[in-house]
Amino acid sequence: MKNRVMIKDLNSHIGKEVETAGFARAIRDQGNVKFLMVSDISGEVQAVVLKNHKEAYELFKKITLESVISVKGLVKSEKQAPGGMEIEAKNIEILSLAEPELPIPVYEKGEGETSLDKRLDWRFLDLRKSKNALIIKIWTLLEAGFRNYWTDNNYLEIHSPKFMASASESGADVFEVKYFNRKAYLAQSPQFYKQMAMAAGLERVFEVGPVFRAEPSFTSRHATEFIGFDAEISYINSYQDVIKELEETIHRSIVAITKTYALDIKKHFNRELPVPKLPFPQLSMKEAKKILAKLKVPNERDGDLSPEEERQICEYVKEKYHHEFVFITDYPVSVRPFYHMRHKDDQKLTCSFDLLWNGVEITTGAQREHRYEVLVKQAQEKGLDLKGIKFYLDFFKYGCPAHGGYGLGPARMIIKIFNLENVREATYLYRGVKRLEP
Amino acid sequence: MKNRVMIKDLNSHIGKEVETAGFARAIRDQGNVKFLMVSDISGEVQAVVLKNHKEAYELFKKITLESVISVKGLVKSEKQAPGGMEIEAKNIEILSLAEPELPIPVYEKGEGETSLDKRLDWRFLDLRKSKNALIIKIWTLLEAGFRNYWTDNNYLEIHSPKFMASASESGADVFEVKYFNRKAYLAQSPQFYKQMAMAAGLERVFEVGPVFRAEPSFTSRHATEFIGFDAEISYINSYQDVIKELEETIHRSIVAITKTYALDIKKHFNRELPVPKLPFPQLSMKEAKKILAKLKVPNERDGDLSPEEERQICEYVKEKYHHEFVFITDYPVSVRPFYHMRHKDDQKLTCSFDLLWNGVEITTGAQREHRYEVLVKQAQEKGLDLKGIKFYLDFFKYGCPAHGGYGLGPARMIIKIFNLENVREATYLYRGVKRLEP
Repeated sequence: MKNRVMIKDLNSHIGKEVETAGFARAIRDQGNVKFLMVSDISGEVQAVVLKNHKEAYELFKKITLESVISVKGLVKSEKQAPGGMEIEAKNIEILSLAEPELPIPVYEKGEGETSLDKRLDWRFLDLRKSKNALIIKIWTLLEAGFRNYWTDNNYLEIHSPKFMASASESGADVFEVKYFNRKAYLAQSPQFYKQMAMAAGLERVFEVGPVFRAEPSFTSRHATEFIGFDAEISYINSYQDVIKELEETIHRSIVAITKTYALDIKKHFNRELPVPKLPFPQLSMKEAKKILAKLKVPNERDGDLSPEEERQICEYVKEKYHHEFVFITDYPVSVRPFYHMRHKDDQKLTCSFDLLWNGVEITTGAQREHRYEVLVKQAQEKGLDLKGIKFYLDFFKYGCPAHGGYGLGPARMIIKIFNLENVREATYLYRGVKRLEP
Repeated sequence: MKNRVMIKDLNSHIGKEVETAGFARAIRDQGNVKFLMVSDISGEVQAVVLKNHKEAYELFKKITLESVISVKGLVKSEKQAPGGMEIEAKNIEILSLAEPELPIPVYEKGEGETSLDKRLDWRFLDLRKSKNALIIKIWTLLEAGFRNYWTDNNYLEIHSPKFMASASESGADVFEVKYFNRKAYLAQSPQFYKQMAMAAGLERVFEVGPVFRAEPSFTSRHATEFIGFDAEISYINSYQDVIKELEETIHRSIVAITKTYALDIKKHFNRELPVPKLPFPQLSMKEAKKILAKLKVPNERDGDLSPEEERQICEYVKEKYHHEFVFITDYPVSVRPFYHMRHKDDQKLTCSFDLLWNGVEITTGAQREHRYEVLVKQAQEKGLDLKGIKFYLDFFKYGCPAHGGYGLGPARMIIKIFNLENVREATYLYRGVKRLEP
């Protein structure tokens, strides 16, 4: 549609005739005057249909909720209309007529009426609500923010394969694929392949792609398939170099998001999104446990934090440092994978970190062990089958720089940006144990 | 490494002492004078070790090919050195010692000696060659070019699920996954889900992600898993709107690539990459077949082009229009999927196109049929099981704008950028029927 004006741009066309298009909502027939809202991806506007525009007036009764229409008419400033503007429709065309009965309401407020499950069944209608479309808009900005940081700082992009010959890290919770006359497995993370990029001398890489976890888990945080943001960098001195990169990347993304959408986030989700100060606060696991003990939070997991502990330590940091983020560092070997490097002066601790945001873990990172003999020893200690990871161990035999990186869950960041309760709302189309459709 | 200078930046440090790091190559011990090349992701430089720097001189003999080293020393202009510069090494440190025997040579010229299969077995060593790293650098720019066009033009990013409840388009060549106590299938394309975004009113979307094809195919063009660039836009008047977006996106990416890497592409691959003029030439399938008949190229596939016809028609276009690209439009219904819209005035033709680049198809696109009844009829005509695609057909019941889009194979673009012979070289890690490792 060549001359279509996006609804957000109508205010620069007051007094002129324009053409808009979108979904028809809130249809009200008040006899001689008829109203409806037209909604496109940029906003919504009230259209008023008067008796003297005969064709439009006659057509009006055929319009069903959520039909796609085009409206030609005069843009007017109108105090009583939502947004202070309306279009006096001279010409309406139904571009795509919706069936008269919608399976879920799209426009009405009060989502409490429709269950989340039913909304997910009809996700394409659910996403028409401007608050849900906002989630997709902000995902776009969030990812662009990460990518801009990466490409501006000489990271190269890799797309590692999702098919693997053996189960990637732990062997548990892996999906099995019928692969011609043998079996393949779906990658649980690009971990091995981004480390391969370090052995290949690419020095700094990132990857954005799906990861697959066959966990039979039904929590509000888990999905069987989700997008991971992964980065890995070489020639580091310690995992602090990784932390620095990560916090700057997050900072840059949140700056971009608040610049464009702070008001929309506030309006639709009642959330004031602060730009986090640099550097982010840090606590070692030992320090965190001490603080939690003082706060009398039960120590449920040795050397690791329970969801309740994650919440409480974030509350503490928020109060003390006025910061929504906190790095927890120096996890014990017992709760970390074999490839995390260990502290020189304390072999029980790893050079690793998690990043928590308002009570939820959004990232795990570490310096990796790049010394072949040490790595083999650590794999054996964890009881791994060396045959299955031979291709990975080989990466470290022919020269490999010191390196580290992180994996981040953008859907968890989306949850925290909006204060959502469920990861099912944070993704375009959720996949879980019991959900493979639409 | 805080004070490390990247090799490409050394020319601004002539006469100064600096620290560099990278892989050790081309080690030559000429008695009192010793040489090696240090290679990082940005370039390579010769290091010379003289007898008076005793520690470095002694250490030199321990350095194996491809070990990671740091070199501190004086940057000197030196005509006889490759690139006209060298470092007089005062201090060398071995950061990661490589085993003395490399499974494949990294530095030596003449790849003919190592088979492609063996190079893929040791892909992390193969990628250390600067010509192969260049492929990853240019992929990064290519994708950034597409993404910059998309985000500058109000496309939203979606990540659609790769798990599906039923086989996506055709039912053939789909990978089956053990999904808890049922079966799932891996998406062969995001087609249905990007159209869902149109039904959701997102208006313009893009997706970059893996697609999976269980074709038992061993050609130089096919892989079982590869990355797709997909876009879909609403409120179009015809597929020409899609063509226009696509050619501008490609144009922008190639401009960005040639700006930074034209010389490197020429140096390593002897390819002059021209920036394609806008608009790209177009031929309808009917016109193309007429031209091919005149050229006496055998008509092997009715209504479609054989690989030989693709090559010949591109030769013809190159000669006549001095253009490496050509859109072939208006494919007959018989060779297109059910969801392609048909011509108003000729029901045997679809509103579709392929884009060829120097003899290879890199994109397929079309306006989609968005009218529910027509779509159902077309699906039935193609013999599809309506039950399996009910969730998809539902997208068109509740108002859906006219829309169209394309799917593009970036690895095929990479092939054409460098004139590569095989898709196995165009991807970070190739996956095929017989290759699941590394």
